[in-house]
Amino acid sequence: MYGQALTLKKLAEQFASLPGIGRKSAWKLAFYILTLDKNRVKNFADTLLAARQNICRCEICQNLTDKNVCEICSNSARDCDIICVVEQPRDIILFEKSRSFNGLYHVLHGLISPLDGVGPDKLAIKELIKRVGGGAISEVILATSPTVEGEATAMYISKLLKPFNITTSRLAYGVPVGGELQYADEMTISKAIENRSRL
Amino acid sequence: MYGQALTLKKLAEQFASLPGIGRKSAWKLAFYILTLDKNRVKNFADTLLAARQNICRCEICQNLTDKNVCEICSNSARDCDIICVVEQPRDIILFEKSRSFNGLYHVLHGLISPLDGVGPDKLAIKELIKRVGGGAISEVILATSPTVEGEATAMYISKLLKPFNITTSRLAYGVPVGGELQYADEMTISKAIENRSRL
Repeated sequence: MYGQALTLKKLAEQFASLPGIGRKSAWKLAFYILTLDKNRVKNFADTLLAARQNICRCEICQNLTDKNVCEICSNSARDCDIICVVEQPRDIILFEKSRSFNGLYHVLHGLISPLDGVGPDKLAIKELIKRVGGGAISEVILATSPTVEGEATAMYISKLLKPFNITTSRLAYGVPVGGELQYADEMTISKAIENRSRL
Repeated sequence: MYGQALTLKKLAEQFASLPGIGRKSAWKLAFYILTLDKNRVKNFADTLLAARQNICRCEICQNLTDKNVCEICSNSARDCDIICVVEQPRDIILFEKSRSFNGLYHVLHGLISPLDGVGPDKLAIKELIKRVGGGAISEVILATSPTVEGEATAMYISKLLKPFNITTSRLAYGVPVGGELQYADEMTISKAIENRSRL
């Protein structure tokens, strides 16, 4: 195809299958790989396999980890009576970078979205309820995105948490309404944690 | 780092080391890999290794190939008396997609650029001269970019080809088809006027 070797074409196709990488970029990346040291490429391939093989969910917070219990949950310097509930593992990166939160996390792995067939049972909600039921938690911050699904999921969980008589809160509207959490900058994230509102 | 597993961080770093992929995209890709089927990831890793291991330069045209002689050079349906000289293997894709050329190629793997320490000896120029010296070639199109380095390289090669008494040519300059005239630079406009064609 287009006069290029089959192996090279296959590599370009692999890159093109990744999100956000178009065909031109894919070819560029494939050509780039050929210029790299063989050990570097071996390392890349090994890392791909290792990540897919070894990464699992933390027993406690459901964040992705290569141990049974993730680094944050096993860090005794963190405030273990406050949980920040997020949609995806990558949301944790945002909060950690903002350095404004020293508690624990809980990853839902999605948001309630009936139109997409995602009900509460498909999310890690029961694991959260179990954690709170353990008794050591004083506050749960529901840090889902300020979108329709994010709000609905937060509302749903806050109702489930009512009987436990703990504080539940929501990020302050420092984050732009209707926007994706991923695009917020560190200052906004920091302010949003600072001014979190009680539910 | 940022509360994510080390293996995952390493994968994100691998992606971030590729050209045109920023840190946010790198994390996105790393998380995406975890959602893929294990066989898909194995396939990706294998393709990376295979491409880096098996791809070499075609004995004849220096294009990248996984055989000794590339598909184009070994295709008897191509016009084997005309050679299109290009800077990079990816340039071949452009010409093949345009379906406007049915001859053979020759890949220089760079352009003469004294400031970057790239002299003619670092490019596949002697291999081109040897091909032309073989006697079966009637025309060489010097299809390097219309940049300073591209022009200089084309001029250098055309001088070397003089003694062989064959046709050497250069791509036509002009305004890009389908492009807005407004965006063409002065040099292009000037060349387009100079080489105007009668209707």
